Amino acid sequence: MTTRMIVLNGGSSSGKSGIARCLQAVLPDPWLAVGIDGLIDAMPASMQTTAAGIEFAPDGGVIVGPEFATLQAAWMEGVAAMVRAGARVILDDVFLGGAGSQQRWQQVLVGLDVFWVGVRCESAVAAGREVARGDRIRGMAVSQAEIVHQGVVYDLEVDTTHTESLECARTIAARLGSSAAPDGSAGG
Amino acid sequence: MTTRMIVLNGGSSSGKSGIARCLQAVLPDPWLAVGIDGLIDAMPASMQTTAAGIEFAPDGGVIVGPEFATLQAAWMEGVAAMVRAGARVILDDVFLGGAGSQQRWQQVLVGLDVFWVGVRCESAVAAGREVARGDRIRGMAVSQAEIVHQGVVYDLEVDTTHTESLECARTIAARLGSSAAPDGSAGG
Amino acid sequence: MTTRMIVLNGGSSSGKSGIARCLQAVLPDPWLAVGIDGLIDAMPASMQTTAAGIEFAPDGGVIVGPEFATLQAAWMEGVAAMVRAGARVILDDVFLGGAGSQQRWQQVLVGLDVFWVGVRCESAVAAGREVARGDRIRGMAVSQAEIVHQGVVYDLEVDTTHTESLECARTIAARLGSSAAPDGSAGG
Amino acid sequence: MTTRMIVLNGGSSSGKSGIARCLQAVLPDPWLAVGIDGLIDAMPASMQTTAAGIEFAPDGGVIVGPEFATLQAAWMEGVAAMVRAGARVILDDVFLGGAGSQQRWQQVLVGLDVFWVGVRCESAVAAGREVARGDRIRGMAVSQAEIVHQGVVYDLEVDTTHTESLECARTIAARLGSSAAPDGSAGG
Repeated sequence: MTTRMIVLNGGSSSGKSGIARCLQAVLPDPWLAVGIDGLIDAMPASMQTTAAGIEFAPDGGVIVGPEFATLQAAWMEGVAAMVRAGARVILDDVFLGGAGSQQRWQQVLVGLDVFWVGVRCESAVAAGREVARGDRIRGMAVSQAEIVHQGVVYDLEVDTTHTESLECARTIAARLGSSAAPDGSAGG
Repeated sequence: MTTRMIVLNGGSSSGKSGIARCLQAVLPDPWLAVGIDGLIDAMPASMQTTAAGIEFAPDGGVIVGPEFATLQAAWMEGVAAMVRAGARVILDDVFLGGAGSQQRWQQVLVGLDVFWVGVRCESAVAAGREVARGDRIRGMAVSQAEIVHQGVVYDLEVDTTHTESLECARTIAARLGSSAAPDGSAGG
Repeated sequence: MTTRMIVLNGGSSSGKSGIARCLQAVLPDPWLAVGIDGLIDAMPASMQTTAAGIEFAPDGGVIVGPEFATLQAAWMEGVAAMVRAGARVILDDVFLGGAGSQQRWQQVLVGLDVFWVGVRCESAVAAGREVARGDRIRGMAVSQAEIVHQGVVYDLEVDTTHTESLECARTIAARLGSSAAPDGSAGG
Repeated sequence: MTTRMIVLNGGSSSGKSGIARCLQAVLPDPWLAVGIDGLIDAMPASMQTTAAGIEFAPDGGVIVGPEFATLQAAWMEGVAAMVRAGARVILDDVFLGGAGSQQRWQQVLVGLDVFWVGVRCESAVAAGREVARGDRIRGMAVSQAEIVHQGVVYDLEVDTTHTESLECARTIAARLGSSAAPDGSAGG
């Protein structure tokens, strides 16, 4: 079975979206890059100012309410459907619930061959990049750096602390290529 | 049956995304706003520089190649799946193929109650707004203003030439509310 | 004397920046478009979270502190210097202090031929456009619509309530052209 | 004399703007961050499509025409005036003309105490970051990496190849602090 879905999980400012764009550049086929930031943009603006939505606390904490969770669940089904309909998809997400977040994705993606990638970055380095980006709430990088990986099982982990996005992408692509190699021959 | 999908079709700079944001503000439930611009952003950057992808000609023309069309088809299935999974979705699209584009959406959305809205804007006015936005290729507004509506059947048409986005959104919401009213009682 | 500076003053979401971009498109010479939004972007991010900086209240009110005011004053001198050095400049500003704000600009721009334009928009319409834009704090349009014009003297006023940005720009350009016509001949 | 101007010169994707934002965060006083990207945004859109303006070639080369150069010269005077009027300014520029570009700034900034910083990044690494950013023309990073430093004299050079933006900013701030220390006592 050919892998047509890559999940990149990591904390804020760990470098996921940069890796996603590099993957799009280095992988031979066209892949869609979708992610949690796009979902938040698609939500009503009011979702960020009500308790039922999503709250970005001044200290970087994120609290997800029931209305956000409902739309998120439907969006997850939509992403899975894109893959089932033939798209190759790179998903960029932040597993605020750690292993529980992965299980929800596993249920939605059942039957699909998914390549799970943990994107790590030392907390202090991610915090510095958060400052350099200038458009993020300070504190998210630190508060998410560890918790998003708790109990999550990966096919591959990359660490952007000392490795460039493009190099991480090449590592992922190489592993994906070798795992995809036996496709149609000896299994997969 | 309650309508959980609104399709806004119109040419570039006709005001679709402004109406979508206003709809999110005036409708009582939370709706996701997704659209063709988001799909283009999700594609590889190379998609905009290869013949197989999407080409924005200097005169405002848009040519869609086979690789773009393949990902677009899968994305359409994904959007439909979000609605089937319970999300309310406002879709903002440009039917470059007119009636043919609508038919492709109808096939994907089969069984769903969809509210089709034509977003019109006089060609010269849309062209002026294109200049005012500053981030669009000149000529798209004019080249798309008419063709995207050819043969398309709507539940409602709005015209932003002399009507504000918020007022258009209120008109749509009112019609949606009244059509949804009999839900569970006398049909719908 | 040839006019090389146009000042557009109006409340948030009154359409200033759209007019500025249209002016750049319709005026025969190249003009720089600078404005208060650019100044805010150039400030440290912390400027928006300290009392000494600038505060955007949830109700749309804006309070400017001493540190912001100091940098703003220096920036104003810089804009004036660009014009004195030969640039044509369209300035997009929000005179929160009404006549007092204009006087401060007049002192900075002394000796320059400035074309002052009031950009008006009915409060309710500007508020609707604020919703449609989606990236502005709700309430700014209403709270600024009137106060920014109090006591301000203009060469020309335009109203975007029922007039497109491009048409406003053409009106400004026409007046500028006729006022510039006598340049070098009968005065100006 | 207290330094109130920092010039960051480096090729595209070398990390200048990230360092500028980090400097704004670590320096005790409020500094404005201005740069060549802001100037390009302030120019008419047509400036990027005419030979007299600025041309971004598909291979990453940049050609500056006479109209662009004229506005740029006036903008430089404006930036100098902001500093003379009391603002602290971090300038982010790309010296396409190497030493000649620096000389033009030196003429404009005469009499001011300027801290010149070279921002280096290995060509291949900058090229990778260009891919990861996704919004830059491929090739600019490589074509500019070396030429922008030719003949330029610096007070300090930083290299983002293996050093984070925040750490570079701290190094600059430390040097600035020690050079500023004798202010009012033994000169500077």
